Amino acid sequence: MTRVFVTGAAGFIGSNVVDRLLSEGLEVVGWDNFSTGRREFLAGALARPGGRFRLVEGDNLDLPALTRAMTGCDFVFHLAANADVRFGTEHPKKDLEQNTVATFHVLEAMRATGARRLAFSSTGSIYGEASVIPTPEDAPFPVQTSLYGASKLAGEGLISAYAEGFGFEGFIFRFVSILGERYTHGHVFDFFRQLREHPERLCILGDGSQRKSYLHVDDCLDAMLHAIRLGSAAPRKVHIYNLGTAEYCRVTDSVGWICAHLGLKPKFEFTGGDRGWIGDNPFIFLDTARIVATGWKPKLGIREGVVRTLDWLGQNPGCLDRS
Amino acid sequence: MTRVFVTGAAGFIGSNVVDRLLSEGLEVVGWDNFSTGRREFLAGALARPGGRFRLVEGDNLDLPALTRAMTGCDFVFHLAANADVRFGTEHPKKDLEQNTVATFHVLEAMRATGARRLAFSSTGSIYGEASVIPTPEDAPFPVQTSLYGASKLAGEGLISAYAEGFGFEGFIFRFVSILGERYTHGHVFDFFRQLREHPERLCILGDGSQRKSYLHVDDCLDAMLHAIRLGSAAPRKVHIYNLGTAEYCRVTDSVGWICAHLGLKPKFEFTGGDRGWIGDNPFIFLDTARIVATGWKPKLGIREGVVRTLDWLGQNPGCLDRS
Repeated sequence: MTRVFVTGAAGFIGSNVVDRLLSEGLEVVGWDNFSTGRREFLAGALARPGGRFRLVEGDNLDLPALTRAMTGCDFVFHLAANADVRFGTEHPKKDLEQNTVATFHVLEAMRATGARRLAFSSTGSIYGEASVIPTPEDAPFPVQTSLYGASKLAGEGLISAYAEGFGFEGFIFRFVSILGERYTHGHVFDFFRQLREHPERLCILGDGSQRKSYLHVDDCLDAMLHAIRLGSAAPRKVHIYNLGTAEYCRVTDSVGWICAHLGLKPKFEFTGGDRGWIGDNPFIFLDTARIVATGWKPKLGIREGVVRTLDWLGQNPGCLDRS
Repeated sequence: MTRVFVTGAAGFIGSNVVDRLLSEGLEVVGWDNFSTGRREFLAGALARPGGRFRLVEGDNLDLPALTRAMTGCDFVFHLAANADVRFGTEHPKKDLEQNTVATFHVLEAMRATGARRLAFSSTGSIYGEASVIPTPEDAPFPVQTSLYGASKLAGEGLISAYAEGFGFEGFIFRFVSILGERYTHGHVFDFFRQLREHPERLCILGDGSQRKSYLHVDDCLDAMLHAIRLGSAAPRKVHIYNLGTAEYCRVTDSVGWICAHLGLKPKFEFTGGDRGWIGDNPFIFLDTARIVATGWKPKLGIREGVVRTLDWLGQNPGCLDRS
């Protein structure tokens, strides 16, 4: 890993990856179509002396431009995605194009340019409603319940097939929900925005009993870089890791932490039912024994991740207005 | 199931499905782009009195035309595919477009027209190199080894997500290799063609030790229709069944049956290695306990399937020339 191409470079996780790679002395080419990415997330990277960061604006659906931008890179972090799991049924084409076809284009660009190693942000959503919880990487063959999960599963399948067929090395990371600095969507975001607008009441999707897992973005980055560095020593073509903490929380737990941290006592309004939306998974908890066995462990628990996210949102209220 | 839309209607399995549905008194709309489909396979369907069959020529990548053709149908057999697992690495885009994107379009056309039930020809290839053999439907989460398998996995994921998100009912059939009348590609085809050209020698991919499973097309159709009729009684949104026989054979077994049936004693030339091509799976054997438990069982063994396929090829040598 010397010159790294990062798709979704202006996004939440992507911009954190860019900063981390630059701080480790690597050269980075950032690629983003700015559909949801934010230029200010790359302000630090662009301001760094030494010229090790280059930003190219472009879309993953434009394969020739993607190929040109990637030329000369030897490792790809493919993080660009439609990361919205909740509204998939409103625009099914978005997941197909921005996740499945986009991943195909990234692989084709790699094939054309000679880059052979990539890391991919997959998701615990691909386990659907898992029959085994905590869910390990080799859980029983899942049935998809969301267009988002299906599109990420398709991306994983493509990466594995390219690894077998074209000698690629793939690192597939199945994330729980990621929290932290530059977080731009998700329940902490929704709740924080609501409470800013009307501190006296909070609308909660479902009945609040949904059990979910979260990981702080710093821990997520540590885990990915740790696994990638190990990977080269292992003879496998595809390395698949769940990334999360060894705990989960209920939506009501998180609501309690958020209200306590903000010093608010809103009235709760539940929309009802055991799911927040169609395809919502009422219990996500991944078995992270595989990555833990390699020597990584998270530094922050879910509560600390939620609190740090709240603090960042409080310091960056502009992000609330533009989402 | 009253008026059925069949994609890939002029193909091997599709044309057999068309004939079967018509013989059961249903109305059928056949859809094919004739990229590999053959008009003569539909001659019988088109010649039937009563006008219950309509053929529409079109491509799954043309969503408006697909939607128009599907209008008024209440069940879809989505059988159109790039069915070639061997040459995936020569044209990765073909699997993405003709399998993944095509399946997305079929689902979108169903969403637009109101059709809500479909059957899908998936494949045992989605298990990759399975860690459990015989491989059940809920085998450990597989790693893809072919672009074909990855594209079918993506199709399965889309169908399941549409079932959850839009109230579809999906029947996903994971086929072993299908043999029988109108068979147009595969090892029996290759071997028959070779022996017709040069009866004194036979080139065999790999070392011949590969273990594979086969099912006759009549048994395949019986199983699909049986499962679909059961399905309506069951409350599940997605029904997933492996389809195969309770046996497998080595390539050398099949070679022996073929040579014995044709009365030939060719010299064998093995290309060597335990795989026939990149991504070839040296051992495919599916656990069919789930479909067998519903009361279906195959009528023909692998050897009988191979022999009937040979006889059909012998009677239809024109098919050899046009492949």
